[in-house]
Amino acid sequence: MGKNLTSRSEDYSKWYNELVVKADLAENSGVRGCMVIKPYGFAIWEKMQAQLDKMFKETGHENAYFPLFIPKSYLSKEASHVEGFAKECAVVTHYRLKNAEDGSGIIVDEDAKLEEELIVRPTSETIIWDTYRRWIQSYRDLPLLINQWANVVRWEMRTRLFLRTAEFLWQEGHTAHATRQEAVDEAEQMMHIYAEFAEEHMAVPVIKGTKTESERFAGAEETYCIEALMQDGKALQAGTSHFLGQNFAKAFDVKFATREGKQEHVWATSWGVSTRLMGALVMTHSDDNGLVLPPKLAPIQVVIVPIYKGLEQLDAISEKVNPLVKELRSKGISVKYDKRDTHKPGFKFNEYELKGVPVRLAIGQRDLENGTYEVARRDTLQKESVKAEDVVAKIESLMQEIQENIHKKALDYREAHITKVDSYDEFKEVIEGKGGFVLAHWDGTPETEDRIKEETKATIRCILLDAEKEEGKCMVTGKPSIQRVLFAKAY
Amino acid sequence: MGKNLTSRSEDYSKWYNELVVKADLAENSGVRGCMVIKPYGFAIWEKMQAQLDKMFKETGHENAYFPLFIPKSYLSKEASHVEGFAKECAVVTHYRLKNAEDGSGIIVDEDAKLEEELIVRPTSETIIWDTYRRWIQSYRDLPLLINQWANVVRWEMRTRLFLRTAEFLWQEGHTAHATRQEAVDEAEQMMHIYAEFAEEHMAVPVIKGTKTESERFAGAEETYCIEALMQDGKALQAGTSHFLGQNFAKAFDVKFATREGKQEHVWATSWGVSTRLMGALVMTHSDDNGLVLPPKLAPIQVVIVPIYKGLEQLDAISEKVNPLVKELRSKGISVKYDKRDTHKPGFKFNEYELKGVPVRLAIGQRDLENGTYEVARRDTLQKESVKAEDVVAKIESLMQEIQENIHKKALDYREAHITKVDSYDEFKEVIEGKGGFVLAHWDGTPETEDRIKEETKATIRCILLDAEKEEGKCMVTGKPSIQRVLFAKAY
Repeated sequence: MGKNLTSRSEDYSKWYNELVVKADLAENSGVRGCMVIKPYGFAIWEKMQAQLDKMFKETGHENAYFPLFIPKSYLSKEASHVEGFAKECAVVTHYRLKNAEDGSGIIVDEDAKLEEELIVRPTSETIIWDTYRRWIQSYRDLPLLINQWANVVRWEMRTRLFLRTAEFLWQEGHTAHATRQEAVDEAEQMMHIYAEFAEEHMAVPVIKGTKTESERFAGAEETYCIEALMQDGKALQAGTSHFLGQNFAKAFDVKFATREGKQEHVWATSWGVSTRLMGALVMTHSDDNGLVLPPKLAPIQVVIVPIYKGLEQLDAISEKVNPLVKELRSKGISVKYDKRDTHKPGFKFNEYELKGVPVRLAIGQRDLENGTYEVARRDTLQKESVKAEDVVAKIESLMQEIQENIHKKALDYREAHITKVDSYDEFKEVIEGKGGFVLAHWDGTPETEDRIKEETKATIRCILLDAEKEEGKCMVTGKPSIQRVLFAKAY
Repeated sequence: MGKNLTSRSEDYSKWYNELVVKADLAENSGVRGCMVIKPYGFAIWEKMQAQLDKMFKETGHENAYFPLFIPKSYLSKEASHVEGFAKECAVVTHYRLKNAEDGSGIIVDEDAKLEEELIVRPTSETIIWDTYRRWIQSYRDLPLLINQWANVVRWEMRTRLFLRTAEFLWQEGHTAHATRQEAVDEAEQMMHIYAEFAEEHMAVPVIKGTKTESERFAGAEETYCIEALMQDGKALQAGTSHFLGQNFAKAFDVKFATREGKQEHVWATSWGVSTRLMGALVMTHSDDNGLVLPPKLAPIQVVIVPIYKGLEQLDAISEKVNPLVKELRSKGISVKYDKRDTHKPGFKFNEYELKGVPVRLAIGQRDLENGTYEVARRDTLQKESVKAEDVVAKIESLMQEIQENIHKKALDYREAHITKVDSYDEFKEVIEGKGGFVLAHWDGTPETEDRIKEETKATIRCILLDAEKEEGKCMVTGKPSIQRVLFAKAY
């Protein structure tokens, strides 16, 4: 398997597209903008799901499932929400096909037109709040902490595997609370959980903050987000959590009786991460040789490749390897012993490098004689000879080391790509040049934000959550500003 | 919580509908034919998923994800397949909404009409085989063993929670093989896995067999199935596995190079179970007091209800109960200690009976003095006093006993409701009377099958897999028959 991978410096975007396909993560389907997630890619997504699901359940959330379809009238009930999604809705209008009378094939049966069109959910606030009206009567029914794993559809015109697809997989949490403060706390909690997941499991450093009004979710009063930086200096929004105020409760008339017996509208949040995280994972760590996966999310953590001539040598190697495989598995390490005779070791090395397997062991005649393994780590491409009796301990420590090392590498890159600027010229220079995050003063108006976006393609990624207050002047208009905000070009 | 549940004898169908809603499994949504699966119901489904997924992976299958939408032209490629699904397809025709010019609200934007309509997948053979054409070139790529967990849509006119809904959740396996025999073996293997899951985990006895030609999956050469019997004497098809021959490989031109270098079409299977299993689970075991859940699938296996007056008594009880909860959890038993002060013990007893929690512990002042718990099992409603030091062992053995007992009860019911008949009059009498499965001779023609269905509403559920060959005469036409087949009215 020759990798033939375009290098990042040559064409980052092409490198990404090729890598996703060649590493067997996903590919385009025959359906415009919809991807096929291949088994290797899906195995990574399953690991992400399992960990997130655990974190959601540990914080009291339960899973449920709501309909794929949303009646058009539901979507219309919250004004800014429908405004935000109307332009990218897949619309179901009919419920039957039939044979054309002229024999030209199967056509839509015009007699089977729906009375009301159904929208394939772009997000589920409306159908869920229509349900919550039935579920919530009293303060005793609150908080209601629900999550859903689902597919959603947003008809994007320009799509890219994982990063922007017409259909994608995600989880969407939808919670209901008795007080504003409790809902705000929930929205913040979920942002922190997403950040913890990104940092600890994906090894992706993220910056937490809130969105400006114009970048908020359609229907939210506040949108919290985590922002990551890719190796090409562009930012990627990796997760969002919304404080929805009482907007949806009012649109769907969801009230509860307080302890004091008063009727009040419920307070809401929603929050989600999607298969877009797969794109962030790939773009943060991978290199010109292929994927680099964090051990915690790698479907195969260790691969063992035998180097042999003839069955006799293979048998001798297997005699050594089989108990090792067993021991590693007993320690919860996923290991693959690849003794296929249809491919040469060099081909296998390339393949597992491309697929980002964190640790590769090779064992040949000389190792057998010396009682050693050649241990190669994917992140640094370093190899060393390790005594057989030490190899399990070595692998265990590598799992930890690699996880930490790739996080540190990504963090170093990000820290080297956060620039403070004080003038618009300097801003443009950085944005056009080295890229990355730029901290600058802004006057707080959507007009200035729009102008910057139009002139530089950079957007405000977030207002930092724990930034120091620092008074200054907007780099564009010179008007007063109370703190710097974070700009970047973004995916 | 008064249960107010209609009894089975009064109206079985009404009992089922009420139970599903009252036990918090699912409810109808505002979208025609689409259900909301509530957290308690979804927790059962998650347990089913986890177990099935494990069994699939243990037999070498991997998960992947394919698009929700299927271009109309794909669906049309396999003639009998489109014939089978055309009448119940949700069709996406547009990709945008807009504000009506007359201000009447949000309408479909007629300028955003799709060039080719998209069908919301009713099943994924066509989109998957379009993909497999790219994945399969050589015998080295086979077998390809893939499963997908997904939502599908079939526009049913008459729907019932879990049993028949417009949208439902399922898994669909799609495999590709080099030889006919390997594909047949795979289809049979999956039927056996489904049967094992039904018997061992759901405690639902099933009969294995093959479908007659007219009951086969649209596009299959053979459909294997498992059939269960509900308490009203009606059968329920609980899972199917299809040998698809080379039909889809031919329709989508999927060929592989054999070891000898010849180009041949691939052999296929597909197999699935759905949220319909939830209906089977409810209807097999539950009684007039509510759900009865098998311990292996119960989200809460043990509930502990304290009976107390005042906080001091509760504290004394909690001091006993807390370590017990911890010990049970350490043994992998899911336990809930319900010390809510907003509801009385009687209310709680009713609630957990309704929700089918296998074991209920109660502890009051007298128990505290005597060092005992009152242990009640949901399946038999028997109660006994158990010494505190024996209670863990008691619970552990009850988990096993209840699982076995409800299976045995269901099996006894089924065995008492399989009737051999030799005349059509006798057949009608049984079908109209006690119901259940009926074993009878049939001449093997679709005409006779249709006539029986029309006259009695009974269908051939399956041709038994391991039935003894027994020559006889068709009960309707008197023509020769080589073995009895299994009839029933069915869901």
